[in-house]
Amino acid sequence: MTGTVAGTATLLEHLDEGLAAVEGAMLDVTDSQVEVLRDASRHILGAGGKRIRPRLMLLAYMALGGSDLNYVAGPAAAVELMHTASVVHDDINDHGIMRRGRPSVNATWGRTFALLTGDFLFTAVYELMASYGALNIDLAQAATALVEGETLQATAVKSNDFSREVYMRVIALKTAALFRAAGAIGAKLADAEASEVEALSEFGFNLGLAFQIIDDILDLVADEKSLGKTSGIDVDQGRGVAVALGAENGHGGAPSADPVDAIMRKLLEGDTIHKAREQASLLISRAIDSLDVLEASPAKQALVELAHEVVNRDR
Amino acid sequence: MTGTVAGTATLLEHLDEGLAAVEGAMLDVTDSQVEVLRDASRHILGAGGKRIRPRLMLLAYMALGGSDLNYVAGPAAAVELMHTASVVHDDINDHGIMRRGRPSVNATWGRTFALLTGDFLFTAVYELMASYGALNIDLAQAATALVEGETLQATAVKSNDFSREVYMRVIALKTAALFRAAGAIGAKLADAEASEVEALSEFGFNLGLAFQIIDDILDLVADEKSLGKTSGIDVDQGRGVAVALGAENGHGGAPSADPVDAIMRKLLEGDTIHKAREQASLLISRAIDSLDVLEASPAKQALVELAHEVVNRDR
Repeated sequence: MTGTVAGTATLLEHLDEGLAAVEGAMLDVTDSQVEVLRDASRHILGAGGKRIRPRLMLLAYMALGGSDLNYVAGPAAAVELMHTASVVHDDINDHGIMRRGRPSVNATWGRTFALLTGDFLFTAVYELMASYGALNIDLAQAATALVEGETLQATAVKSNDFSREVYMRVIALKTAALFRAAGAIGAKLADAEASEVEALSEFGFNLGLAFQIIDDILDLVADEKSLGKTSGIDVDQGRGVAVALGAENGHGGAPSADPVDAIMRKLLEGDTIHKAREQASLLISRAIDSLDVLEASPAKQALVELAHEVVNRDR
Repeated sequence: MTGTVAGTATLLEHLDEGLAAVEGAMLDVTDSQVEVLRDASRHILGAGGKRIRPRLMLLAYMALGGSDLNYVAGPAAAVELMHTASVVHDDINDHGIMRRGRPSVNATWGRTFALLTGDFLFTAVYELMASYGALNIDLAQAATALVEGETLQATAVKSNDFSREVYMRVIALKTAALFRAAGAIGAKLADAEASEVEALSEFGFNLGLAFQIIDDILDLVADEKSLGKTSGIDVDQGRGVAVALGAENGHGGAPSADPVDAIMRKLLEGDTIHKAREQASLLISRAIDSLDVLEASPAKQALVELAHEVVNRDR
């Protein structure tokens, strides 16, 4: 018991060192000679964020016996930068003015530089991964999936044609594929067996799906609050926009100007926030189940806690 | 003599096969499950283009003894797609409505999908290169340089602060770095010696600089024509916008809404098209000189001809 607590304390210290190395890698690779790219990158990176993708990769690596966190810092920084690049471009398409509690890159530097900053972060991903051989395949496929998911989402918004199937396909591509790659790359960097790589891939994928569902629910709740419709939506009852829209299939409801709003609202068509939370919990259980092939360790335990944290978070 | 002609004929046939394989690789990797990404990619790829970067890579490879053009087709497709991605994003920032004789992706599918199509082409580059190990470093660095060059250009336009130095820095980053990578990767794929890789890198870099200078001159001449100011600018006299602006340093002239126009106009400040052409010719001579370390071959001869073609082209 004392051993586990001590092991956990050591692990968390180790993880913090790893995350610090990830921050360092992100700052290094974005230290451009071109001022606006450096400044805009640091603006968005400095705003923080949950760093859940790097944490997933670092823990997957440690759960499979890896110990050189500096070796993993590059790829872990790469998955976070890939996500960040997509966020910067999203804020152009969605006219997002705030991001992580700060004005968005788009709002601060304008569209042209936001577009170029997103491109730059993407090239930084590529630079970080260049010396990691075949692992590039995992990340490249996830990158393509991410863009495909964003595009499917934009297409569905434009044609006002959301169904649960479309929603699940969108989040599998735009979010879960990168989580899967983070798990897989962490495992591969630790020279894991194929079955272990598969376990961490599955863990990452289901974690990613749950993460996005919860993210969309939280955004919707925040929207409700800011719209002043409710002083705090009754999450368990699933009241709100879903009911207000009153649509049972993917073709009802008014089109929204904001794709993110739209997808969240559509998610809940004919459904309730409660059900969506249940689905996220189910996905988290599946994710945790896939870790059965791993030996017990503080890092494995931390992965389980990460999964619970994703579904229980309130921001 | 007959031997050379026959060798050249064989080479050109071989090159055509290689270029066909490049087209195939570009179509395969952009065959997305997401319709708009596939359609928009094919729209821009199907419009053609000079394919000068793939030709450079294929010829560099062959000039150093390489013969498996299918092996080079992936990286050669990657450099072309990287260029194409930047073109699609450029057309968003510059409000470009025509590209390669067709409506731009931006004009056809709108800004959101143009942004995502550019991102998608970028992920396609990454997918194509994923299994090429350390060669990713060359291309990743060129990708970063390209974005930095575009950003420097946008910065200079915004602050209306162009000098010859800024112009040369912009084109070195946004154009010549990718040409350099094309030459280097072609040589490395043929297992060339370090000195040969360096020769092809230098060749590519100077070719890229010259290519961009000529491109900017041709755009300027075309602008003159379409503006109806002259029925065909007297290139040798260097009359036109440069003189009209009347600026001798980087701070004069009215800011232009179109960054590309602006950089071309500024290029010629206090200078003439004639001088710019002379500079391009000098760069082409330097490029050809760097091929001295290579043994004579039809492919080497084709590289020399490619260089002449770049500086002598009229479109």
